[in-house]
Amino acid sequence: MIDSASQPEHRIASSFATQAMMATLGAELVHVAEGEVHIALHPRPELSQQYGYTHGGAIASIADSACGYAALTVAPPDHEVLTIEFKINFLRPAVGARFVAVGKVQKAGRTVTVCHGEVFAEQDDTRRKSIALIQATIMTVAQPPHG
Amino acid sequence: MIDSASQPEHRIASSFATQAMMATLGAELVHVAEGEVHIALHPRPELSQQYGYTHGGAIASIADSACGYAALTVAPPDHEVLTIEFKINFLRPAVGARFVAVGKVQKAGRTVTVCHGEVFAEQDDTRRKSIALIQATIMTVAQPPHG
Amino acid sequence: MIDSASQPEHRIASSFATQAMMATLGAELVHVAEGEVHIALHPRPELSQQYGYTHGGAIASIADSACGYAALTVAPPDHEVLTIEFKINFLRPAVGARFVAVGKVQKAGRTVTVCHGEVFAEQDDTRRKSIALIQATIMTVAQPPHG
Amino acid sequence: MIDSASQPEHRIASSFATQAMMATLGAELVHVAEGEVHIALHPRPELSQQYGYTHGGAIASIADSACGYAALTVAPPDHEVLTIEFKINFLRPAVGARFVAVGKVQKAGRTVTVCHGEVFAEQDDTRRKSIALIQATIMTVAQPPHG
Repeated sequence: MIDSASQPEHRIASSFATQAMMATLGAELVHVAEGEVHIALHPRPELSQQYGYTHGGAIASIADSACGYAALTVAPPDHEVLTIEFKINFLRPAVGARFVAVGKVQKAGRTVTVCHGEVFAEQDDTRRKSIALIQATIMTVAQPPHG
Repeated sequence: MIDSASQPEHRIASSFATQAMMATLGAELVHVAEGEVHIALHPRPELSQQYGYTHGGAIASIADSACGYAALTVAPPDHEVLTIEFKINFLRPAVGARFVAVGKVQKAGRTVTVCHGEVFAEQDDTRRKSIALIQATIMTVAQPPHG
Repeated sequence: MIDSASQPEHRIASSFATQAMMATLGAELVHVAEGEVHIALHPRPELSQQYGYTHGGAIASIADSACGYAALTVAPPDHEVLTIEFKINFLRPAVGARFVAVGKVQKAGRTVTVCHGEVFAEQDDTRRKSIALIQATIMTVAQPPHG
Repeated sequence: MIDSASQPEHRIASSFATQAMMATLGAELVHVAEGEVHIALHPRPELSQQYGYTHGGAIASIADSACGYAALTVAPPDHEVLTIEFKINFLRPAVGARFVAVGKVQKAGRTVTVCHGEVFAEQDDTRRKSIALIQATIMTVAQPPHG
């Protein structure tokens, strides 16, 4: 369910399909454009923390992936991306009908790309609230790392 | 499988049992002491990212929970904790037989507690590597929030 | 040199005047509005790092103050603000004719306010580049702390 | 006033001497060892924030430099270091007779080095308190950047 036919779409979609963690969470790739990626998640009891809200780790997971894939849209074709670090602020409890993590490239570099992201909780078609802010540093590498 | 009979153990264990996200990841609470909590996770294909390593979001989830529960061990009995924000650096790919997130209180305050944590990848009984560092800010509140 | 006559202007300006660190850096308060504060700094040899660019600590200082004062614009009249933590990414070397730190409130809370900020390097009236991104967590307190 | 005659001492000391910002703050390099650097600062009225404590930006400046120089001690001889980003938590008001920022390398990489640091406020020879925690990501580059 991707609403863009832009150049990087296939690359991001095929990588996303191999992130089993996204399937385990039930996350979907919903928008891919140059420098911007959106990932959606529906709240499920399996993802809750102790008060019944969606766990911060689930929110951080989609925010991290949205930032990483945003960085991948601007990386050279034969390169991969790795999250060096991220920082996330939780602004409000994760309550809503759907969460959408928006990751955007702020500065693309040869080896380091910096992304900013926001996670929104949607109640219905017209109302959404920001529930988290993320700032992430992504490394672009010629090939994936070995453990 | 908690190796401590200290005072906060029961409180943390019963809260942990209600974090469905931890069960979904397959995470276990393995150590609780005043100001320090350990959470373990075995790598599973369902938690992987695109290169087959465990997703940073899963690592961040156990690191966040370890820090939050460390803060809860020093909170007043009728109070709850909420993660305001955290920052995590990924030092090495998440590869190993088991991951253990260690969260420790660095400064406990009336409303804000700061924790530092580290995630280790264990290969066997004798070797482990640090794979992530987290710094988290936790708020102590008299009662859980409403969305 | 404040370009706004809005309500919080006097409060911020009088607090800023007591931040001796800002005078030591040569920083100026240049814009105050509800939820947004700008602080400017002209590069001087006394603020340089080893390559002759302005030190990241000077950039972080004005970014931190811009975020803190943005939070103060939305705090109750008899309250003060304290930076709990911030995270800053340096996007480009700090080179330019003037640096302007823009701090904006993203979520104002009763005890915790989250701000996002950006520092721009201006070359002349028409060109500016983003050189740093900051995300800061500010605590609102009824009175200033004691050491 | 460096208490170590170790190999990297001269390199760090000569770079530190060119950081005019450190002289402006009145900071001193007090310890250099492989993977660890200490920078001290005496509180002065010129460095204060609005309540008379030392400004968080001054504390962040010495913490950032301590981490950057710790990274430089493990960099190849003909390489330089740049702070990509840092995150700092302020644990207590910066009050004391002297502040000492301790930066330590946690993971040295070919292009990215991660450091952890702590800033202590000393009251006298026997008592000191932790006032800040920093986590910093440093890039190692073959030569200094151009603006």
